[in-house]
Amino acid sequence: MAALRIETLNTGSELLLGQVINSHPAYFGEELFKLGLRVQRAVAVPDGEPIAVALKEAMGRSDVVLVTGGLGPTMDDVTRETAAELLGLELEFDESVMSMIEERFARMGKTPRPINRRQAMVPKGARVLLNPHGTAPGLHFPAGLLEGSPDIYLLPGPPRELQPMFVEQVLPVLSRRVDAEEEVGWKNLFFYGVGESDLASRVDEVVGPESGIETGYCLKNGGVIVRLIGGGNTLEGSAERAAGTFPANLVSSDGRTMEEVVEDLLREREETVSTAESCTGGFLAHRLTMVSGSSEVFGFGFVTYANEAKSGLVGVDPQLIEKHGAVSGPVAASLAEGAVHASGADHGLSLTGIAGPTGGTEEKPVGTVFLGLASKEDETVVVRRVFRADRETFKIRASQAALDLLRRRLLGLNVGS
Amino acid sequence: MAALRIETLNTGSELLLGQVINSHPAYFGEELFKLGLRVQRAVAVPDGEPIAVALKEAMGRSDVVLVTGGLGPTMDDVTRETAAELLGLELEFDESVMSMIEERFARMGKTPRPINRRQAMVPKGARVLLNPHGTAPGLHFPAGLLEGSPDIYLLPGPPRELQPMFVEQVLPVLSRRVDAEEEVGWKNLFFYGVGESDLASRVDEVVGPESGIETGYCLKNGGVIVRLIGGGNTLEGSAERAAGTFPANLVSSDGRTMEEVVEDLLREREETVSTAESCTGGFLAHRLTMVSGSSEVFGFGFVTYANEAKSGLVGVDPQLIEKHGAVSGPVAASLAEGAVHASGADHGLSLTGIAGPTGGTEEKPVGTVFLGLASKEDETVVVRRVFRADRETFKIRASQAALDLLRRRLLGLNVGS
Repeated sequence: MAALRIETLNTGSELLLGQVINSHPAYFGEELFKLGLRVQRAVAVPDGEPIAVALKEAMGRSDVVLVTGGLGPTMDDVTRETAAELLGLELEFDESVMSMIEERFARMGKTPRPINRRQAMVPKGARVLLNPHGTAPGLHFPAGLLEGSPDIYLLPGPPRELQPMFVEQVLPVLSRRVDAEEEVGWKNLFFYGVGESDLASRVDEVVGPESGIETGYCLKNGGVIVRLIGGGNTLEGSAERAAGTFPANLVSSDGRTMEEVVEDLLREREETVSTAESCTGGFLAHRLTMVSGSSEVFGFGFVTYANEAKSGLVGVDPQLIEKHGAVSGPVAASLAEGAVHASGADHGLSLTGIAGPTGGTEEKPVGTVFLGLASKEDETVVVRRVFRADRETFKIRASQAALDLLRRRLLGLNVGS
Repeated sequence: MAALRIETLNTGSELLLGQVINSHPAYFGEELFKLGLRVQRAVAVPDGEPIAVALKEAMGRSDVVLVTGGLGPTMDDVTRETAAELLGLELEFDESVMSMIEERFARMGKTPRPINRRQAMVPKGARVLLNPHGTAPGLHFPAGLLEGSPDIYLLPGPPRELQPMFVEQVLPVLSRRVDAEEEVGWKNLFFYGVGESDLASRVDEVVGPESGIETGYCLKNGGVIVRLIGGGNTLEGSAERAAGTFPANLVSSDGRTMEEVVEDLLREREETVSTAESCTGGFLAHRLTMVSGSSEVFGFGFVTYANEAKSGLVGVDPQLIEKHGAVSGPVAASLAEGAVHASGADHGLSLTGIAGPTGGTEEKPVGTVFLGLASKEDETVVVRRVFRADRETFKIRASQAALDLLRRRLLGLNVGS
């Protein structure tokens, strides 16, 4: 592993008040690891004085510090001034930065406010990073501005401004500092339908400590990701052995999500899927359409939240609903078959259940969901599951289970049970 | 503000490798702020040695340290041992914890693996926190186990295990330590359709520094959240003045999301909405159904990803698509009207656009979207917008703009333009 010590420092009171989920560490981690670099620590602090304390600490133990946020025009945006002060640099008004800000406002038919002038203040010795997606330019303080000071990058907080700036203006510089000999690879194996303990026990058997491979386990969206990190030769063999522990449960070993795997399988066979969703309310269709190119395999989705929609849109017999309830196996089967029929797709996936927090009964508690899979060329199956969780997790888990049904069918594996 | 110094320490290599977005700081921040408590720093470190370093630092400057992760059964789970060692405590096998683990496995028809025995090791002097949702019990190291050591809580990583444990077994203890006199309130004002600089300039005019109110601005889902923090009396008046700066753009001042506001407005009028989505692929329906009780106002959703679905499901004339293209104002209008017609809902919202990354043209670049709003009692409007962003952000921004159209119509505000 390359020895470059990297820390991230995300600033913003909102990150610690529950208003915003801080996705920056995950973004930096992923982009840097592609170069074989690892983030050693990710710190988040509120606006104001804590930034100076945390930045000073990070400077003392890092080669590169990536700071986000606090470059905006408002009074709580103090990162620029804080970094300049720590490094003993004066701020100077930069005409060229100001004219870029003016141009950006002009394109929206506006003129900058006086408070935007702060964004054109540049510390002496710092390098301006252009921001084509916002008004706040980034700043790079090269290493050694103070005795032993690291490279410090100040980047804007909004991901759509930060990410292009990071990819185009920061990563290329860092990549030149990676020692090629030290490069280390990784493999992520994504399993679904097998427990973490069972999986870890088997994987630890086939990837022993003598392999020198670092293993890690992480629960995600109802599945388990097995992470293997290590040198080239051992890595491939270890990953293959680990992948072989539960072959029918292995969704991907190349980073693809469940929906990407399912869509690739459909594309290979030139088949399509449509959806009829009650409790997940369009979330399964959303997942399918998050994949670029999904229009080749997905064209029709039905959100049959009301019973009238179940009957009206995909032809579920109202008497079936009357007899078994909307949350039932027969209705799930009819929804899936109706989705195929109403769309002409090769496969239909359906979900009907109780997302909660209310609506549960003793027989069908909150979290109960019936998943249906109908196919033109195969029999309809229905599976009952219970995912007791908040509404969002429920939708994630239930749609994951539905997609896995289709994955198994497309691979000729045992479906249902 | 209460003086309790709280830090969070999230452990897990996956948090720094880009595999998982760390949502714990947002969760802790929100729950603690309800008690008037603020997190002073949120740190994430990889598994292994860095945990000891970071925990030791946090112990030196905090009254309470909330640690997550690393309580699982696998070899990379070392938090329990790390904390015990820092505090100089021996680990003892706890029969009662082991039998809880065994019971949990038994309920799933399984028996624990030998590696699960590690999860029953309890440091002497630590208090076990029950985990009804997983095998890993939490641990509480009371303050003063070492000279000056803070309260340290070790909590499981998965949110569905952590959150109930935190709410039931940690928050009640912390709440007893809040000094009632020091309580401070907050207000979040959610604006949509007005820029951050314009908003901040006006808000700073009406909420001057003499109010003693701390203001903060945060871009979220295409809108701006204005955060006001301060003592009771001044807070209410300041919030009212801030809310009055752009009254038509104020979505909520009570924490409600755009979809909650829209659904509340629909519920008041006993009206319903249905959706016809192309580029957002079900995401708008998903958002509407994330609100508990949404079935009162939303029953039918159409995911018309394919042109055949646009015609087949909501009756868009194929010639209209031929003439103007699927991504066009007339098709958006027809989709919205078709959604009303095919569902009987009072309002129909439609989206058709180019999510990207491919499919753009010079006339309609990637990010272009046409939003349609049709209503039984009012004329159809179509708005064209461009959201140049990754696929997920595009879906968020586009659906937000669509919901805002309906919000404005329901409030009798100017729609369109």
